Amino acid sequence: MATKNIIYAQSGGATAVINVTARAVIEEARYHPQTVDRIYAASGGITGILTEKIFDLTDSNYEDVWSIENEPGAFFGTCRYKLDTPEKNPSQYDRIVSIFKEYNIGYFFYNGGNDSQDTTNRIAEWCSKSGIDVQCIGIPKTVDNDLAGTDSCPGFGSVAKYIATATAEVTADLLSICGSSTKVFVLETMGRDAGWIAAAAGLVKKDEYDSPQIILLPEVAFDKADFLKRVRYCVENIGYCFIVASEGIKDQNNNYLTASTVVVDSFGHQQLGGVAPALANMIKQELGYKYHWAVPDYLQRASKHIVSETDYLQAEAVGKHAVELAMDGKREIMVGVKRVSEDPYRWEICTTPLAQVANSIKAMPANYFDAKTSCLTAEGFTYYSPLIRGEKYPKYANGLMQKTTLIKKEVDPRLPPYQL
Amino acid sequence: MATKNIIYAQSGGATAVINVTARAVIEEARYHPQTVDRIYAASGGITGILTEKIFDLTDSNYEDVWSIENEPGAFFGTCRYKLDTPEKNPSQYDRIVSIFKEYNIGYFFYNGGNDSQDTTNRIAEWCSKSGIDVQCIGIPKTVDNDLAGTDSCPGFGSVAKYIATATAEVTADLLSICGSSTKVFVLETMGRDAGWIAAAAGLVKKDEYDSPQIILLPEVAFDKADFLKRVRYCVENIGYCFIVASEGIKDQNNNYLTASTVVVDSFGHQQLGGVAPALANMIKQELGYKYHWAVPDYLQRASKHIVSETDYLQAEAVGKHAVELAMDGKREIMVGVKRVSEDPYRWEICTTPLAQVANSIKAMPANYFDAKTSCLTAEGFTYYSPLIRGEKYPKYANGLMQKTTLIKKEVDPRLPPYQL
Repeated sequence: MATKNIIYAQSGGATAVINVTARAVIEEARYHPQTVDRIYAASGGITGILTEKIFDLTDSNYEDVWSIENEPGAFFGTCRYKLDTPEKNPSQYDRIVSIFKEYNIGYFFYNGGNDSQDTTNRIAEWCSKSGIDVQCIGIPKTVDNDLAGTDSCPGFGSVAKYIATATAEVTADLLSICGSSTKVFVLETMGRDAGWIAAAAGLVKKDEYDSPQIILLPEVAFDKADFLKRVRYCVENIGYCFIVASEGIKDQNNNYLTASTVVVDSFGHQQLGGVAPALANMIKQELGYKYHWAVPDYLQRASKHIVSETDYLQAEAVGKHAVELAMDGKREIMVGVKRVSEDPYRWEICTTPLAQVANSIKAMPANYFDAKTSCLTAEGFTYYSPLIRGEKYPKYANGLMQKTTLIKKEVDPRLPPYQL
Repeated sequence: MATKNIIYAQSGGATAVINVTARAVIEEARYHPQTVDRIYAASGGITGILTEKIFDLTDSNYEDVWSIENEPGAFFGTCRYKLDTPEKNPSQYDRIVSIFKEYNIGYFFYNGGNDSQDTTNRIAEWCSKSGIDVQCIGIPKTVDNDLAGTDSCPGFGSVAKYIATATAEVTADLLSICGSSTKVFVLETMGRDAGWIAAAAGLVKKDEYDSPQIILLPEVAFDKADFLKRVRYCVENIGYCFIVASEGIKDQNNNYLTASTVVVDSFGHQQLGGVAPALANMIKQELGYKYHWAVPDYLQRASKHIVSETDYLQAEAVGKHAVELAMDGKREIMVGVKRVSEDPYRWEICTTPLAQVANSIKAMPANYFDAKTSCLTAEGFTYYSPLIRGEKYPKYANGLMQKTTLIKKEVDPRLPPYQL
């Protein structure tokens, strides 16, 4: 059997474990020398394929390849770049096909979220139409956990662990000081359309009045009067109020709470503000409580230092199995995680046709969270708990995370330049 | 020798390691049964002494006491409460003395920052004046690192490690995505008056153009034109710009950058904003770059999950030695850390008279940081590096930090109630 080459690329926002997947793909590919000749990775996702910015990893040594999983961020570079439709811009797809031909690509692995799976699917269709035999495999990745075809999405477990941990830590801090100082704390989490991340704070909450007393999700319309009533009740009866708010919460007219929040700075500039300062300020104005707020933003999705072991193992498995499945002749699928047992928690790798994944969004089931009490339900706990289990720490040297030893060698371009 | 009792209290903002100190104080006190009878802790610092909210820990078992060091926050509760001067309000001091008498206190340990050391000193003077023999010992704690009498302040090493880690993580994330998305990231750190915390981001930076390219400290007046010039240079030549800003940065007229930053939310409310959104917005307005910003606020000082081992060991040592020194008859001192060697880094416990500590603030030496390049100098690296070394992780159970098993038993009040 003639050997072909593989190309792997990363897409969308980085997660704490995307480089674990990258390491697993490269490592597994090297176990198949009869089938795979050269191992490439694109720089900056699909933009690296279009512009022929490609790393050749074939001759990297084993330890160097392993060391990339210790890196935060997306090691090969990622992108937010949506391909045009093939109807509108067929030359874009032709360019990808010519790169695939030039590099004798037989296997394309795209590691990303919803948009990326859609991209993979379109590329697969174009390859097939162009008569070029490339097996296109999607590998899931997103902190948002909204990807269909996988019970949990690599990257999500770690961000959930980060939010649960931060919530426990700040709760203890707030509890220490609320007697004579700060009464209210607002933590803003990622999640523009779904409350998957914010609801993870519920993992540390036992009942309605336990901290965080209020968790606000985009799925539930924000009710100012009810919100302030609950805040006041908590401060008066518990001594403090901890609020977790998803960045995407909306009011009863379906407007983002931040959309009309205007920051005017000392230079007269205006900008959209965050949900956390907006809520904190509302409380200050209406109830007069001393507050603090936090917006960890990228810190939450980049938090390599507090990776969930479950997440790590799943990120590794989707990478490894993506290659194994490709070697078995599978194509036009996304690899995913299937939960096969709740107690004990067990999972296995599953696959879904790319076309099915590409156009669906996985909403948080309504029965996972009780908005009245801001508590995860029993079903919610069952879903979330195993995803944050275990701590997979990176390696440190002299107090800082160890850097990878892998040198990314870009190949010399062989085709004419391409303008994005 | 007649036995006396000890009382320990926590004051000011919590740190990630203050409960390590608490555990060490209690544990060490239990090794001296010939001298120490009962071991008390006040609830909420000095306010717990005034209001007679006191825990008796004498009969707690060994494992339970150890388990408190796994807790974030300040386990016994802390306060932001400044005593009046003895001249203005002698009855406040008389109340403390009557509590000390009632509980047969021979040793008072106050674990806090500048204000708390001042409080300890005043109490010591009043006890002496009142003819009551209480040895008053200060134990350092503050993330701000601005306490005199100690080379490094327990709590600071961990927050420095948190900031350095977050900076490394977000740098990798930003580097992954800047090609097609976010160009600028602003991270706001604690530090109203001194740049100790913000400068810790310099630990991951090798030269002027390495990330974070710009570090803004309160010690250096903010120059808008120069700032924007540097941001533009970085984005145009490096592809992104990472900015770390201390919450307390001031403009050339010595006004806080946030003081005139007004947030107007959708409900018409106004509040002071954060430095990070103000800077991010300035960049957006003047240069048009896509940005993200983060304000970790309490998350940085409460970050039990990423404690520096050096910090842990020093927090333990100051607690243990405070008790040992008291047993040796020492009084009216603060225990501190003295650096005795740079390479290898070695430290030992030292003491400073409370009166000396109480009225001084330790500024960051000017030769630690080069504002022109936003780099730590060689001296700065030498100072900072050992403080973030080692990772002392808390214990987890099922993916969440293990809770202490110690039950705090409040004693029944014996004196008339006291109104704060």
